[in-house]
Amino acid sequence: MPQIRILTEAELRQFVSLDIETIDAIEAAFLALATKPVAMPEIMRLDIPEHRGEVDVKTAYVPGLSGFAIKVSPGFFDNPKLGLPSVNGLMMLLSARTGLVEALFLDNGYLTDVRTAAAGAVAARHLAREDASVAAIFGAGVQARLQLQALTLVRPIREARIWARDFAKAEQVAAELSTELGLAVTAVAAGRDAVDGADVVVTTTPSETPVLMADWLQPGQHVTAMGSDAEHKNEIEPAAIARADLYVADSLKQTRRLGELHHAIAAGVVAAEVTFPEMGQIVAGLSEGRTFDDAITIADLTGTGVQDTAIATLAHARARSGDRGTPFAT
Amino acid sequence: MPQIRILTEAELRQFVSLDIETIDAIEAAFLALATKPVAMPEIMRLDIPEHRGEVDVKTAYVPGLSGFAIKVSPGFFDNPKLGLPSVNGLMMLLSARTGLVEALFLDNGYLTDVRTAAAGAVAARHLAREDASVAAIFGAGVQARLQLQALTLVRPIREARIWARDFAKAEQVAAELSTELGLAVTAVAAGRDAVDGADVVVTTTPSETPVLMADWLQPGQHVTAMGSDAEHKNEIEPAAIARADLYVADSLKQTRRLGELHHAIAAGVVAAEVTFPEMGQIVAGLSEGRTFDDAITIADLTGTGVQDTAIATLAHARARSGDRGTPFAT
Repeated sequence: MPQIRILTEAELRQFVSLDIETIDAIEAAFLALATKPVAMPEIMRLDIPEHRGEVDVKTAYVPGLSGFAIKVSPGFFDNPKLGLPSVNGLMMLLSARTGLVEALFLDNGYLTDVRTAAAGAVAARHLAREDASVAAIFGAGVQARLQLQALTLVRPIREARIWARDFAKAEQVAAELSTELGLAVTAVAAGRDAVDGADVVVTTTPSETPVLMADWLQPGQHVTAMGSDAEHKNEIEPAAIARADLYVADSLKQTRRLGELHHAIAAGVVAAEVTFPEMGQIVAGLSEGRTFDDAITIADLTGTGVQDTAIATLAHARARSGDRGTPFAT
Repeated sequence: MPQIRILTEAELRQFVSLDIETIDAIEAAFLALATKPVAMPEIMRLDIPEHRGEVDVKTAYVPGLSGFAIKVSPGFFDNPKLGLPSVNGLMMLLSARTGLVEALFLDNGYLTDVRTAAAGAVAARHLAREDASVAAIFGAGVQARLQLQALTLVRPIREARIWARDFAKAEQVAAELSTELGLAVTAVAAGRDAVDGADVVVTTTPSETPVLMADWLQPGQHVTAMGSDAEHKNEIEPAAIARADLYVADSLKQTRRLGELHHAIAAGVVAAEVTFPEMGQIVAGLSEGRTFDDAITIADLTGTGVQDTAIATLAHARARSGDRGTPFAT
């Protein structure tokens, strides 16, 4: 009798978190994307405008891994009115040898949150200065918190600034993160002030107009933009891409279509055919990361199916070794 | 605490089957596809050549239905060597209002089998002669059985012929179907002989070269080709499409890309820009079905996401009303 293992969000939170092993797994996923014949179809997208709903489906097969994930990510933006979170969803892990479903992760997007923050850590690891100690975070949601935590795992962060459209929310998150991370975290009313003197800037907003301006950037800064996962989202002024010494995509195919690069191309400040390195090429040493202290670097993260396969594989291995979750006979 | 309902294949088989209500639900799905602003993204496809594996993901949102299905269909063709079926997979039903997962159908492709056969019944209902009594089935697999059963639900079938590459298998299926359906079902060694005198022909093979030739067709015959769901599959000689009085697609966008039409266009016997009616337009009365007794009609079925949403909606309604399956707190 074939069995699948079902894990809920509450169960997953007990044994999958943002830690160095997770970051390493996501780094390995980027490496695979750049060096192996990974199969990663274009993101499937379904829109339900009547209910302000959208669903993304992502998948990727990484040769060498025993399974591959398929992730269903619904976002329904009227849900808060019903007392429900906007984002939910699940991930499944299928055997790469037989196609049989091995595990269902009813994670409501938790694994996505973790793998997305881990990608921010990978970007900082390869692009931020070794001594980066001041972070500026744009946004005050789940990723604002997780991205700052991710930075602390790979760089000696001692101070952070939070900017958000809603200053009161920025203050609240800053206070919470000060305690949680044991850092000096302050809310800042002006984005420019958050960026001034920061070593690493991470934008985590769903903004449709730039929140980070090109002329705010200072020599030596690294910027990770991770909020844009759809054509209409845009966090960084297009001129910033042109101004940067190094622009890195998680997947160039995706950032040309829905990342910050897409807007820079549309604005005419970057030619459509220019090639940029991908994160995995830098991890592999096939392309250079930061080459000098004063370089301005930008990582454009849209979220890739290989990250989902990597986190699902990690979660499944831990679930099996710890006999977690509910077995279900099919 | 949100709950989802999980149903296994064995459970689903107890209360979802190929019957008139199912056929009507699939007919309504085609109608919706032709008359409502249905959202049906292109099929997502992942290939895993190392293990002769392929995965299709389909979805469709039909305005007015409370939920939409996402279906994951793996086919791993080395599985029989491992004692496993080639095809498995699952379907999930999400709320169209909130995106929350409402039900998981661990059906191993069973609901797909049923909805695919039901589409054959819809095609026969609108395209086969009212008095069609002799059926020819190409293939000896699950769909060969179900398509014949589907025909008996909508037309007064009294005789059937089975042709398959493996004659022994055709004989076995013919014997079984004779008993199950109470019909005269015989295995036929030559495809041409199966077609000669038949009123309805259904091709259900995974063939990559035509098994049904254009000059075998006779006035008044209806052909449903349902085996081709990928670019490389081709059951019907391209000239047959040109010869037919009426060609109908389940989704013209799909049949131009992966149905029999695709091969007729590639062979140059049909111009790429020619428009043909879709099944739903005929159901809606927006386009004519069979207009005269001697017409040769062809239905090209590639399988659509709206069919999945329709069968999942039906299964969920029956599961709820009968309190079937296992509730699972998430």
